[in-house]
Amino acid sequence: MQKGRFIVVEGLEGAGKTSAIQTVQHWLEQHQIDFISTREPGGTPLAEQIRTLVKQVQDEQVAPETELLLMYAARMQLVKSRIEPALAQGQWVLGDRHDLSSRAYQGGGRQLSESLINQIRTAVLGSLRPDLTLYLDIDPAIGLARARARGELDRIEQEQLAFFQRTRAKYQQIANEETGIVQLDASQPMAAVQQHIVGALDQWFAGLQE
Amino acid sequence: MQKGRFIVVEGLEGAGKTSAIQTVQHWLEQHQIDFISTREPGGTPLAEQIRTLVKQVQDEQVAPETELLLMYAARMQLVKSRIEPALAQGQWVLGDRHDLSSRAYQGGGRQLSESLINQIRTAVLGSLRPDLTLYLDIDPAIGLARARARGELDRIEQEQLAFFQRTRAKYQQIANEETGIVQLDASQPMAAVQQHIVGALDQWFAGLQE
Ligand SMILES: Nc1ncnc2c1ncn2[C@@H]1O[C@H](COP(=O)(O)OP(=O)(O)OP(=O)(O)O)[C@@H](O)[C@H]1O
Ligand SMILES: Nc1ncnc2c1ncn2[C@@H]1O[C@H](COP(=O)(O)OP(=O)(O)OP(=O)(O)O)[C@@H](O)[C@H]1O
Ligand SMILES: [Mg+2]
Ligand SMILES: [Mg+2]
Repeated sequence: MQKGRFIVVEGLEGAGKTSAIQTVQHWLEQHQIDFISTREPGGTPLAEQIRTLVKQVQDEQVAPETELLLMYAARMQLVKSRIEPALAQGQWVLGDRHDLSSRAYQGGGRQLSESLINQIRTAVLGSLRPDLTLYLDIDPAIGLARARARGELDRIEQEQLAFFQRTRAKYQQIANEETGIVQLDASQPMAAVQQHIVGALDQWFAGLQE
Repeated sequence: MQKGRFIVVEGLEGAGKTSAIQTVQHWLEQHQIDFISTREPGGTPLAEQIRTLVKQVQDEQVAPETELLLMYAARMQLVKSRIEPALAQGQWVLGDRHDLSSRAYQGGGRQLSESLINQIRTAVLGSLRPDLTLYLDIDPAIGLARARARGELDRIEQEQLAFFQRTRAKYQQIANEETGIVQLDASQPMAAVQQHIVGALDQWFAGLQE
């Protein structure tokens, strides 16, 4: 049986990931592809408990290393219990965030060293990597305004603008340096973003068939 | 100012760690050494929440990698917020478990590869390492019987005897191979164990003064 493919949507809060996911889901259904959806951190009962822990405002400062390890703890629970089994069965996986978020937020935002992050991710993820990442690039001022309209901000969302600017810069840097990541301008109207997503999916999918 | 020293007590459940800690505390007080006590996983509000999460019985299988990362997440929160600041100020730290527990339980018990564990611990702990580890060696059947007398067993304590036998074997292996770890026979009566602990502390402390 052919292994499933792993598509991930990435970007800052309010970039439009959840909206983009709907576009990708529609595209997968049109292609009659069997898939599961995941979100990170979360996606299993234990991983959702870790999500709650990491997002809730704490009485104490959360050490950046602790945050990083909690993110990977949640990720590994999801990978082992849902992502790897699905891919092995030929199902596709559509992820709302994955590894790139940790590289951007904990690496860019929290300024943890790339070497520390790479040691952890390589140690636990091995060769698992998305086949296609759609990175929705947005000015954090715009993204946060969209997200704020939705309600209260969690511990990470309460960070200063500079934190998100560093996170965005890291996203952009990685998107420029590595293959398999399509960067989309998420400041455009939703219809335009959707059109670009479908275009990126079609082009990538055509490449797979060759 | 001279850095503080880091003493850790290790061993299986019911080995007598908490009892041994009291002996070490008494010894520290007699030597008029300023110290703090920690326990792992735990020792800060966030780390205690992680402790609860990792010990509670889950509806789902906890992936060994998730368990490992949660242990290191709790550890790093404690290291950054309490252990490192204390040592830097010249205070000593007395730990009820530390890094060696992860190597023994997740490496021995869960059979995660030594290379995976070493990558994580080196990445996050850097050069931090206990100055003295007192390893209380016990047959798990005896230790678990002592622990069971205390009340309900948590998720990890509910493991099969074979799990604890592998954990003990890993503890013994590391204690034999590495320096700074004193192995004590914890099946002896409590007074004898206490006497050996004081002897080990005195001998180690005399070495420090030379
Ligand atoms: N291109 C767009 N133009 C204007 N508004 C948009 C656009 N895309 C999404 N929105 C709106 O912005 C808000 C945030 O979008 P969405 O929830 O999809 O972002 P998200 O990236 O999933 O955020 P989070 O990281 O918080 O989950 C929603 O109200 C959504 O309708
Ligand atoms: N040498 C000993 N001989 C007999 N009983 C002992 C001895 N040491 C400790 N005990 C008893 O065994 C029980 C467990 O001891 P203790 O709580 O110190 O172990 P522990 O290693 O801290 O366990 P845990 O890992 O569960 O915290 C206690 O009731 C204690 O009084
Ligand atoms: Mg979303
Ligand atoms: Mg104890």
